[in-house]
Amino acid sequence: MSKPTKTAITPTRAEDYTEWYQQVVKASDLADRSPVRGCMVIKPWGYALWENIMRVLDGMFKETGVKNAYFPLFIPLSFLEKEAQHVEGFAKECAVVSHHRLEKGADGGLVPAGALAEPLVVRPTSETIIGDSFSRWISSYRDLPILINQWANVVRWELRPRVFLRTTEFLWQEGHTAHASAAEAVKRTQMMLDVYARFAEEFLAMPVIKGRKTASERFPGAVDTLCIEAMMQDRKGLQAGTSHFLGQNFARASQIKFQSAQETEEYAWTTSWGVSTRLIGGLIMTHGDDDGIILPPKIASSHVVLMPIFRKSEDRTNVMAYVESLAKELKEKIYHDRRLQVEIDDRDIGGARGWEWIKKGIPLRVEIGPRDIAGDSVYVGRRDQDHQTKVSLKREYFVEEVTQILDKIQQNLLERALSLKEEHTVTIDDKNDFYDFFTPQNTEKPEIHGGFALSNWCGVDECESKIKEDLAVTIRCIPLRGNTPTGRCIYCGKPGESRPVFAKAY
Amino acid sequence: MSKPTKTAITPTRAEDYTEWYQQVVKASDLADRSPVRGCMVIKPWGYALWENIMRVLDGMFKETGVKNAYFPLFIPLSFLEKEAQHVEGFAKECAVVSHHRLEKGADGGLVPAGALAEPLVVRPTSETIIGDSFSRWISSYRDLPILINQWANVVRWELRPRVFLRTTEFLWQEGHTAHASAAEAVKRTQMMLDVYARFAEEFLAMPVIKGRKTASERFPGAVDTLCIEAMMQDRKGLQAGTSHFLGQNFARASQIKFQSAQETEEYAWTTSWGVSTRLIGGLIMTHGDDDGIILPPKIASSHVVLMPIFRKSEDRTNVMAYVESLAKELKEKIYHDRRLQVEIDDRDIGGARGWEWIKKGIPLRVEIGPRDIAGDSVYVGRRDQDHQTKVSLKREYFVEEVTQILDKIQQNLLERALSLKEEHTVTIDDKNDFYDFFTPQNTEKPEIHGGFALSNWCGVDECESKIKEDLAVTIRCIPLRGNTPTGRCIYCGKPGESRPVFAKAY
Repeated sequence: MSKPTKTAITPTRAEDYTEWYQQVVKASDLADRSPVRGCMVIKPWGYALWENIMRVLDGMFKETGVKNAYFPLFIPLSFLEKEAQHVEGFAKECAVVSHHRLEKGADGGLVPAGALAEPLVVRPTSETIIGDSFSRWISSYRDLPILINQWANVVRWELRPRVFLRTTEFLWQEGHTAHASAAEAVKRTQMMLDVYARFAEEFLAMPVIKGRKTASERFPGAVDTLCIEAMMQDRKGLQAGTSHFLGQNFARASQIKFQSAQETEEYAWTTSWGVSTRLIGGLIMTHGDDDGIILPPKIASSHVVLMPIFRKSEDRTNVMAYVESLAKELKEKIYHDRRLQVEIDDRDIGGARGWEWIKKGIPLRVEIGPRDIAGDSVYVGRRDQDHQTKVSLKREYFVEEVTQILDKIQQNLLERALSLKEEHTVTIDDKNDFYDFFTPQNTEKPEIHGGFALSNWCGVDECESKIKEDLAVTIRCIPLRGNTPTGRCIYCGKPGESRPVFAKAY
Repeated sequence: MSKPTKTAITPTRAEDYTEWYQQVVKASDLADRSPVRGCMVIKPWGYALWENIMRVLDGMFKETGVKNAYFPLFIPLSFLEKEAQHVEGFAKECAVVSHHRLEKGADGGLVPAGALAEPLVVRPTSETIIGDSFSRWISSYRDLPILINQWANVVRWELRPRVFLRTTEFLWQEGHTAHASAAEAVKRTQMMLDVYARFAEEFLAMPVIKGRKTASERFPGAVDTLCIEAMMQDRKGLQAGTSHFLGQNFARASQIKFQSAQETEEYAWTTSWGVSTRLIGGLIMTHGDDDGIILPPKIASSHVVLMPIFRKSEDRTNVMAYVESLAKELKEKIYHDRRLQVEIDDRDIGGARGWEWIKKGIPLRVEIGPRDIAGDSVYVGRRDQDHQTKVSLKREYFVEEVTQILDKIQQNLLERALSLKEEHTVTIDDKNDFYDFFTPQNTEKPEIHGGFALSNWCGVDECESKIKEDLAVTIRCIPLRGNTPTGRCIYCGKPGESRPVFAKAY
């Protein structure tokens, strides 16, 4: 039996999940704190991940007919006020631009000057400013549907920021569409939710539940909010993407009108949908282990690192030549929609080198020394396996099989995440069981309490908010499939109206 | 002889170049005004162009070892103040965030609340905020060089905005690098200028002069500013990209220090370089004609539009089947680094359809009716030729040759732009000639005055500013090649120190 080894991340997940997350972000070189409160610096290793997420999603959007465009960062305050619920929902977290220059103040330092007649809000989301364009672009049913997406930064002032999960500035995409009928808009809302779910499972290896938010968790101004919810390793839920059917609310607010085929004037039906850099936080919490992150190969910042080993300096030329020719060969391979990404790390820093790449979560680590070269073989470690499990593979075989090995890692990550989710998704019909499930001290093993509870609900806000008050547990969503009530409301005992997913959440 | 035909754009370039520009932007569907003063909406046709510009440039940057990252939108005022010239240069155009929420005011409307202790500036450029990260990322010469790029939006408050050319918010990339020696940083500054020049000529078909700015036009805080300058069709100059050697100025301001190989503590040497959505304005003014824009195929939003023609409704099925099979075949072709982009426009709106695509500048328009199909041929119009010049080509030949035809268009656009530049770049040694050259009423044909004047300069600021005062003509740059003075200063008559490019400019 091997002794338990020290982990690369302290504390471990079991010791302190919250602090583990912060330490993984740091150790993995994905992001850095910034001097601006609540804002993050996305470092190259993290941004490459975001670039891959953008590339894949962008292709999926375009396949459904969506086109990209770009709208102003600033929203006049009066625009935001056009939709009452909307402004109510965002007023508490708006960055406000009040001046357009700086000038010397009394003490010689610079102070804001050139006060704006109307303050501008840095977009927290763009329904109102894009709605203004739509109102000018649309006049007849022939102009519909309009299918637009924007890749952009947005700002929502966070009082309790957490890198990637809740930051004051974050990067996202926001899709905005306008349609001639409610049915078409509803169909688009569902279509984009399906795109998100497929992306999460196929690329992020993150299983999700597709569902509908309750009224209290709906997007401010929406008629219906659909979402994908994922289970993290601490068994909390993470909302990973949302797709909103906005009815005619924003069309009324922005006067998006069109002449119908029957020559009547109608308000358009609109949708909006978005995912953000929060997905990276979800990725960390889905696949990370006590040695750092594990990047799913299909969206990994890079696939393989080659680490030459030379004990004697005279080995260097030979080993590097071998490594470079191998890198060249690997880079010619296509892994799904892009060329294989290969790093060469020839730093002479001992064991720290391998551990750095483990913490960064690269799928494959390959060591190559004089003895490997003599046998024309390479020494390969997979990030989804224990760091001590390495195998010697013939070079030719490795090159031939590398994309299949990556696919196996991808598959393995998905399966692990699926088992976690299945293991901790339970049907609970008894109120005491429900309270026990979400109360650590009531269980023998506090570290394995909780998860997703499928329990009946009467549909009344009050039961939802009482549970939230008691347990900090919320309805993550009412699943689109299998939501038929099987009994009485878990809180009040009245007849159930649906069977939602209850969980603690990020 | 054919009669002169009406143009699609009113006024023409000769009638009113400034207004022609505005009308082309509108007619080409590239961008739209926004309700936020000075900000633009980039419409799908314009954003696709920007996506292509980003994709190509991003690849070129990465080939030189640059990696992308992302830094905060907001810069604390105190950061901006760290470099005296820098803040001086940007203070007059800074959007200032002063509050972080909205609350109900006395009259019931929303007013800014939650005043910030320190105001934040919306980044006009990111030297100071990125410098802060660099100061934490760099400790030894082994950490250098650091080569970073960011694709982002920036804000510089414009009092006289013009779409694409000068907007309050614009999209750009900003590269930031740090090096262990001045020589290395200077080399990088030049390398990126070369990338810009190559991109402008090979992809935008926009010939440029590589040069150096005089002290008065230097980036605030830079030691040296290199630039590429292009000639527009009204013979004014457009600064299309800049690359700055920042010396140790920003390293001192942000405390970017490293331990050298000799174990001394040194300030790093930094550079920054950027191009923006202004390139799209340059593209319009380089290639546009009195019918709209002309998109160079290598970066065009799309390459080919297929326009089915059916006089009788029973033709429709056949014609559409033919058009769709042709589109499928064309989309399989690779044009440089991407698949051929093909549009099908089957709207029944008469001649307006063809004109729309002419105004939008798509390189190839293809009409296909029952008679063409009978002869298995297509009727092709090239956007770089007169709109009446169309040729019937065998379908097979067209498919075979389409990428070569696109290359010919690309080449033709570059040659036209080169001749314009050569024709209107003149060597002027006499002060009266110089004043005549830049004074329309002194010439017989006011519409053909002006251009780039290569004239000697003594190197003294005062001569530069007197010329600017008299003629609104500035030194665009001192060309990197062929700048040896050939005589006396065009203004004061003292010995010349260099021979810069003088021109009116955007």
